[in-house]
Amino acid sequence: MTRETNLQVLLRNRPEGAPQPGDFSVVETVRPEPAEGEVLIRHLFLSLDPYMRGRMSAAKSYSAPVELGEVMEGKCVGEVIASRHPDFTVGDKVLNGFGWQRFSSIRGEKLIKLEEDGALPLSAYLGVLGMPGLTAWVGLEDIGKPKAGETVVVSAASGAVGQVVGQIAKQRGCKVIGIAGGPEKCRFVTEQLGFDACLDHRGDLPAQLDAACPEGIDVYWENVGGAVQAAVFPRLRDFGRMVMCGMIAQYNEAPGADASAAPSGPNLGPVVRKRLHIQGFIVSDSGWSRYENFRSEVQAWMKAGKLNWREDVVTGLENAPTAFIGLLQGKNFGKLVIKI
Amino acid sequence: MTRETNLQVLLRNRPEGAPQPGDFSVVETVRPEPAEGEVLIRHLFLSLDPYMRGRMSAAKSYSAPVELGEVMEGKCVGEVIASRHPDFTVGDKVLNGFGWQRFSSIRGEKLIKLEEDGALPLSAYLGVLGMPGLTAWVGLEDIGKPKAGETVVVSAASGAVGQVVGQIAKQRGCKVIGIAGGPEKCRFVTEQLGFDACLDHRGDLPAQLDAACPEGIDVYWENVGGAVQAAVFPRLRDFGRMVMCGMIAQYNEAPGADASAAPSGPNLGPVVRKRLHIQGFIVSDSGWSRYENFRSEVQAWMKAGKLNWREDVVTGLENAPTAFIGLLQGKNFGKLVIKI
Repeated sequence: MTRETNLQVLLRNRPEGAPQPGDFSVVETVRPEPAEGEVLIRHLFLSLDPYMRGRMSAAKSYSAPVELGEVMEGKCVGEVIASRHPDFTVGDKVLNGFGWQRFSSIRGEKLIKLEEDGALPLSAYLGVLGMPGLTAWVGLEDIGKPKAGETVVVSAASGAVGQVVGQIAKQRGCKVIGIAGGPEKCRFVTEQLGFDACLDHRGDLPAQLDAACPEGIDVYWENVGGAVQAAVFPRLRDFGRMVMCGMIAQYNEAPGADASAAPSGPNLGPVVRKRLHIQGFIVSDSGWSRYENFRSEVQAWMKAGKLNWREDVVTGLENAPTAFIGLLQGKNFGKLVIKI
Repeated sequence: MTRETNLQVLLRNRPEGAPQPGDFSVVETVRPEPAEGEVLIRHLFLSLDPYMRGRMSAAKSYSAPVELGEVMEGKCVGEVIASRHPDFTVGDKVLNGFGWQRFSSIRGEKLIKLEEDGALPLSAYLGVLGMPGLTAWVGLEDIGKPKAGETVVVSAASGAVGQVVGQIAKQRGCKVIGIAGGPEKCRFVTEQLGFDACLDHRGDLPAQLDAACPEGIDVYWENVGGAVQAAVFPRLRDFGRMVMCGMIAQYNEAPGADASAAPSGPNLGPVVRKRLHIQGFIVSDSGWSRYENFRSEVQAWMKAGKLNWREDVVTGLENAPTAFIGLLQGKNFGKLVIKI
C-alpha cells in the first residue's frame, strides 16, 4: 500500500483586514509516522471558528499566533489509523487540535477519546458537543447566570455558539430573543431552535429590540460587537450581564487597534447606575476541566430532542480558506464544519 | 427659650451641565418638633458627595431625584436634642441622611447611633468611617479583590473614596499608584497616605502610567471616567478588574446621554482577550448590612495609625452649594465636609 500524502493548509501571509485566499497555501507533504507514545490520526472533520482570525495575526492575544509557513490551527475529529500508545487502538474516534490538515501524529495524552454510540454524528463534537457548545455553557454558568423569567438576547443566534446559548437559556426558563442576519436564519432560530423571537439586524434593530423586549434585557450574549452591541447595550436592565464571548464584527480591524487609539465603544457611564457586570472569558481557562459535567447535561437534552442544532458542512479541506473568509462575513448558516 | 429657625438648602432648578449657585435656594423655615417615635437632631456635619449631582437630575437613576423645592439630600452627623424614641437620649450622636439643613426630626429606626469615644472626630463618620469608606471597602472586597503583589491604580486618589481605596490596597500588600490633579494633591497621596506613587493627570498620563507600572494594572478603581479612563483601560492586565465606582468627569453631561446616542467609551474588544471583569455597583445594595465588619477593621487601622485620611472642611451650611460646585470641578482636597 502506498503511503497517502498529507494535505495541509498553511498560513502564508498575515492578513491586514479581511483575509484573502492568497493568505493561505495548500500543500502536499509526507504523511507523518507515529513515534513511540503517539497516535496516527486520519482527520474526519475540521472545525472553523472566528477565533482563528486572531491566530493569523501577530498581535498579542491569549494564545500564540500561527507562524508563517505553519499549519493553520484548528480542532478536528479523527479516526485512529495506527497507535503506539496503550490507550488507543485502530478505529478509535478522537477529538483535539490537529490543525487544517488530513493527517497528524500526536501523543495520546493530548487526545479526548469519543464514545461513539451512533446516536449523534461525530461532527457534533466540533459544535454543540465541542468547543462552541462548551463556550456557551461555561459563559452562561459563570457570567450570564440566567434565571427563569429573565430576558436573554443572543447575537449571532444561528451560529455555532449562539444556537446553544439560546437553547440553554430556554432550558433555564428564560425568554430568549435571537439576533441574526436575514429572514432565513431568523426563521431557523425561532422554528428549529425554539427561540421566542429572532430579530434581523439588517432592519432597525433598536426599534425591534424595544418591541421584542420592552422590559429590557437581563443577559446579553455578545458575539458580534459593532452596531449590534451599540443597540443592545443601553437596553440592559439593572444588574444585567453582558457575556463578552467575542466581537466578530471587529476582528478584521487593524492590528493594534486598542481603546486609547480608537475610542469607539459605548460610554461606560451606565455600568455604574445599572450595576452592570461586563466580563470577558476564554473557554480554555477553566472550561475543559468541566467538560464531562457539560457533556452529560447537554447530550441528554440533545438525545431527548430538547436541544436542536445546525451545522454548515463544507466538503473538502481545500475549501477551508474560502469557508473561513465567508465565516467572517456571516455567510455561513449554523456551525461551520469542514468535512475533510 | 425662643425656638431656633431651621436653615435649609432647597433644589430650585434642575441644572443642565454644571450646577450654578442659582440652582439652589437657602431658606429659613420653622424648626420641626419630634412626633411620637421621632428624634429631633441638630446636624453637626453634612457630607457633600459627587453622587448628589445625580439627585439634581430628573433622569432615571438608582435613586429617586430630589424634587424641585425639596431639601437637598445628604448624610449628616448630628446630636440628639430631643427624643420621643426609647433608644435615644439627648446628647447621643447619630448618623444618617438628614439633608442639607440644620435640624431634622426622624424616626429612631432610621438612625445609626455612633459610639463617641473621643479618639476619632465625628466628621470621620461622613468620610473614612462613613459612606465613602464603606464604598471603598465594599468595592475592593466584592470586585477589585486585590491580591498581595498586584498593582492597583486609583483615580481621584486624594478624594473621599480614593484615599481609603489606596490604603486598603496597601494593607493587602499591593503596589498602589494614585492619580490626582496637581502636585499638592499628589504629594499628599504619597507622603501622607503612603501610596507608592501618584500621577498628575494634568501631565502626560499614558507615559506616566507606563513608567510607574510597566507591568500593567491589575485593579483600576474608576472614580472619574473621561481621559483618565481612556489612559488606564488599555493598560489593564489579563484578568484585570475595573471597579466602576463613578465617573465624575461625565456627571455634567447632558441628561439622557447614553451609549447609543454618544458612543464615546473604550472599544470593548480587549475585554474578551484580557478576560476583563467590568462591574458597576452601588454601595447601598449590600454594603450597609456589612457595616460593622467594615467599621471594626478600618477603625482599628485608623487607631493604630495605619490608615490616614484627609478632610476638606467647609464651614457654614450656606456655603454648601459653592462647595458642591467646586467638588464637581475637583477644587476640593480630601473628603469634602460641610461644618454646619
